[in-house]
Amino acid sequence: MHMDSTVEPSYSSGSVVSSRRAVALSSRLAASALATEGGVMGNEAFHAWFEERQRSHALQVSRIPFGELRGWGFAPGSGNLRHDSGRFFSIEGLRVRSDYGPVREWCQPIIHQPEIGVLGIAVREIDGVLHCLMQAKPEPGNANGVQLSPTVQATKSNYTRVHGGSAVPYMECFVDPDPRRVLADVLQSEQGSWFYRKRNRNMVVEVGPEVEAGEDFCWVTLGQLGALLRLPDLVNMDARTVLSCIPDWRAGSATANAGLHSDTEIRSWVTTRRARHEIVAEPVPLREAAGWHRSPDAISHESGRFFSIVAVDVSSHRREVPAWTQPLLEPHGLGLAALLVKRIGGVPHALLSARVEPGFLDVVELGPTVQCTPESYAHLPAGDRPRYLDAVLERRPERTLFDAVLSEEGGRFLYARSQYLIVEVDEDFPTAVPEDFRWVTLCQINELLKYSHHLNVQARTLVAGMRTLA
Amino acid sequence: MHMDSTVEPSYSSGSVVSSRRAVALSSRLAASALATEGGVMGNEAFHAWFEERQRSHALQVSRIPFGELRGWGFAPGSGNLRHDSGRFFSIEGLRVRSDYGPVREWCQPIIHQPEIGVLGIAVREIDGVLHCLMQAKPEPGNANGVQLSPTVQATKSNYTRVHGGSAVPYMECFVDPDPRRVLADVLQSEQGSWFYRKRNRNMVVEVGPEVEAGEDFCWVTLGQLGALLRLPDLVNMDARTVLSCIPDWRAGSATANAGLHSDTEIRSWVTTRRARHEIVAEPVPLREAAGWHRSPDAISHESGRFFSIVAVDVSSHRREVPAWTQPLLEPHGLGLAALLVKRIGGVPHALLSARVEPGFLDVVELGPTVQCTPESYAHLPAGDRPRYLDAVLERRPERTLFDAVLSEEGGRFLYARSQYLIVEVDEDFPTAVPEDFRWVTLCQINELLKYSHHLNVQARTLVAGMRTLA
Repeated sequence: MHMDSTVEPSYSSGSVVSSRRAVALSSRLAASALATEGGVMGNEAFHAWFEERQRSHALQVSRIPFGELRGWGFAPGSGNLRHDSGRFFSIEGLRVRSDYGPVREWCQPIIHQPEIGVLGIAVREIDGVLHCLMQAKPEPGNANGVQLSPTVQATKSNYTRVHGGSAVPYMECFVDPDPRRVLADVLQSEQGSWFYRKRNRNMVVEVGPEVEAGEDFCWVTLGQLGALLRLPDLVNMDARTVLSCIPDWRAGSATANAGLHSDTEIRSWVTTRRARHEIVAEPVPLREAAGWHRSPDAISHESGRFFSIVAVDVSSHRREVPAWTQPLLEPHGLGLAALLVKRIGGVPHALLSARVEPGFLDVVELGPTVQCTPESYAHLPAGDRPRYLDAVLERRPERTLFDAVLSEEGGRFLYARSQYLIVEVDEDFPTAVPEDFRWVTLCQINELLKYSHHLNVQARTLVAGMRTLA
Repeated sequence: MHMDSTVEPSYSSGSVVSSRRAVALSSRLAASALATEGGVMGNEAFHAWFEERQRSHALQVSRIPFGELRGWGFAPGSGNLRHDSGRFFSIEGLRVRSDYGPVREWCQPIIHQPEIGVLGIAVREIDGVLHCLMQAKPEPGNANGVQLSPTVQATKSNYTRVHGGSAVPYMECFVDPDPRRVLADVLQSEQGSWFYRKRNRNMVVEVGPEVEAGEDFCWVTLGQLGALLRLPDLVNMDARTVLSCIPDWRAGSATANAGLHSDTEIRSWVTTRRARHEIVAEPVPLREAAGWHRSPDAISHESGRFFSIVAVDVSSHRREVPAWTQPLLEPHGLGLAALLVKRIGGVPHALLSARVEPGFLDVVELGPTVQCTPESYAHLPAGDRPRYLDAVLERRPERTLFDAVLSEEGGRFLYARSQYLIVEVDEDFPTAVPEDFRWVTLCQINELLKYSHHLNVQARTLVAGMRTLA
C-alpha cells in the first residue's frame, strides 16, 4: 500500500461539469476528425516526413537459425524459448481443451509476456484543433519497416527503467497524469490465439503546449489519421487499438441511438457466452506441444498450417542502434477480419461475434463478424467454414465501406497482415442471427470499450475504421 | 458453435422504448422498496414461515477427522483434497508473490471450483408490486442452519444435470430467459482470499404469474428484504450479491449526481491499480503449501491464524435428505467489512479501496473501505494495520447507518461471519485519500456493477446494505 501519496481531489462542481466537459470533448474530437487536410502538418508534408523516416529508420531483417540467436535460447527442461535475462517475452506451450469450434483439443506455442505495457497517445489542442502525437517507429516484423505508432509503446520494464535502459520519450505524459485530462485509460487484450493473457494499457491523455514533437514524431488530426488508416501497412496495430478507445464522437447519446437490443441485453449476451463456453488453457512446456516440431530454423505444425516460430537478426544503418536478434511468430497466410454493418431502424449496427480464443483472460471477447485465416480452414468440411464468410467474399464493391491490408504488432510477429473489411449488407439481410452473434450499435460498442476485455484487438481496428466512414 | 439456434430479435422501436422501460423499472423497484410491510406475505407471516423452515430443515453438523470423509480424500501425489468423482470443489495450494501489503510472499490452501454457477432471483409483479422469490435453504456451514437464499443457487453440474441429480427448482426461469425480462446478468467474483478465480453468474429475471412459490419459497418485497438484511445471519451471501446487481433505483441519473470524480477518472483509477500491482498466484500441490500443516482433524497455519480446512458430517431430520460429509474452510475470527460514507457537495459518496486478493481473475477489485479479520493483524506493527480501521472502531452510534453480522457462503465455509458496517463520517473528514482509495458515488457504483469483477463480494453486500438506508 502506498500510504504516503495522497490524492488531492479536484472537486468543484462535479459531474455536471464533467458532463458538459464530455459534450465539449465530443465536439472537439469531431472537429479534429473533420480536419482531414491536417493542421500543424498538411498531408503532403506528412507523407514527405514519413517517407524520410522510413528511409532513415529502415531495419535490415534476416531470418537466422535458432542457434544464431544471441541472448535467447531454449530452456533445458521445458524447451521454452526465452531470453537469458528473463526479460522481454518467452515462447511456451499451451494445451487447450474447449467445447467450442470444430477442433476441441489442441496444443500450440504461445507468446508469454505477463507485464502490462503502456500504449499511449498524447493529444494537444493546436490552433483550436486537437492533434495526436504520433511516432514513426520501425519494428523488425513490419513488412515495410516503419509504421505510424502511438506516442508511447512501452513495456513495464521499459518505463520503470528497472533494467537501466534509456528513457522512453514522452513517457512522463502517461505516468500519473492529471486525472481530468485522461480521455481513455483501459486494459485491452491482444491476439488471443498468439498471446497468453497479454494486455496493454490503452491511454489517451491531453497535454499542453509544453509538449512538442521530436524528430520522429508529428502532430496529426483525427481526420488525417482516418485517411492514413485506409492505406496499407501504415498505421500500426498499437495505434489502431488506442484510437478505438477514444470516446466515440460519432456515437451520440444513448437515447438518440435506438438499438435492436438494450444495453442490458448486450451485456447479458456476453455473460451468457462466457458462462456457456468452457475452455481450459494450460501452459505446458513447449517441448510437450504435440503436433509441433522444432527444426534448426523454425517451430512449425506438422500440417504446415497456422504459424511458425522463427528467429531474425536485426540491424540498422544508424550507428546508435545496436544490432540484435529475437524470435518472432510468423503467421501462415493473410488474415481476414470483416465486419458486416446494417442499418436497422435507421441506426447503423455492426454484427459482432462472441469469440473464444485460448489466450483471453475471460473466455470470450467480441470480435468481427468474420475473423479467420482462410487458408487454415481449407482442410475442413464446408459446414465448418466460418459463418458469414460467404457474405464477405461475395461483397459488392459499392457496399465495401473499408478495405485495407494492415499489419499486426511488428515487434512480435513477422509479416503478420490482415485484410480489414467493413461491408454494408442489404436491408433484407437477416436480422436473426445464431447465438454467437449480435447486432450492436456504435453507441453500445463505445460503452463496451470503456471496460476491459470486451472487444478483441481485430474488432478494435474495425471500430477505428468505422469512425473514418462519412 | 451453435449454428442452428437463431435469435429472433425483438426490435420494434428500439432503445427509446428501452430507455422508457428503464425509467419504469426504476420506479417499480422503488415502489417495491417502499413496501416494507410486504405484499403477498406480511412480516409476521414471513417470520412464522421462516422459523418453521428453520425447524424443519435444520441440519446436524459435526466435525469429523479427515479419515471419516466419505467420497473425499487427499490425492496421493499432490495432497490436494478432492472428491473421488472430480465433482464439487477441491482444496489445493496457492503460492502468491505480490508487491502489495505487509506480507509479500506466502502459500495457502485455496478452494478451486472452476465451473460458473448461477445465482438467480426471480421477480414477479403481484398486485402491482414487484416481489422477489426467495428460498429458505439450509447449508452445513451456516451458524443458524437455514438462511434466506436466492430463488436458485446452482452449480453448472447441478443445472445441466450432467451427473443425473434431481432438477433444480425454478432453474427454467434462468436458462434462456426472454432477454427483455432480464434485469441483471453479470459474472461476479467471490472471496478472493479463499476461492481461486471463482465466479458466479448473478441473474435477476422477471417472471409472470405462471411462477408460484413452492413450500420452501416465498415472495417478498425489496422493502422486506431491506429490513431482513439488517438481521443477523438471515439473508445469505448469495442473496446479497444478487440483490446488489439489481439496477439501483436510488442512484438517479448521472447528471443529477455530481461526483467528486468523473466516471472516466474512476475507471482510470481501476486501470492504474490493476497495471501497477503485480501479483503472481500459482496453483501448487497442497502438500507444498509452506507453513501449513495437516493433522488428522485440520489443515492449519503454523501461527494458528487465518483459517483452517476441516471436515464435517452432515445429516438431517428429513428422510429424503441423505447424510453426507464434506470439507469446509473455517475462518479464524470474525471478519470486518466497513464502508465509510460522506456527503460531498450534498451527494453521498462511499470510500472504496482497490484490493488485491490472490484469487481475483483480474488483480484488483474494489472493496469496502476496511476489510480485514482484525485478529489476523494483531501480530503486525501498528503501521501495518489497515488504513481507516481506527475511524471505523471509533464510530459514533448515531453515525452508524448499518451494522449487522452476516454469514458468508455456508456451503463452503464453516461459521464464517463478518460484521458489516456503514459509517457516515463528518464533513471535515479528509476528502484527500491514499492512492488505493477513492470516493465513489452510488451512481458510479451502479455502473461498475453492470460489468464483471469491479466490486468484490464484501463490497456488494455493503451496496445491498446502502440501499436499505432511508
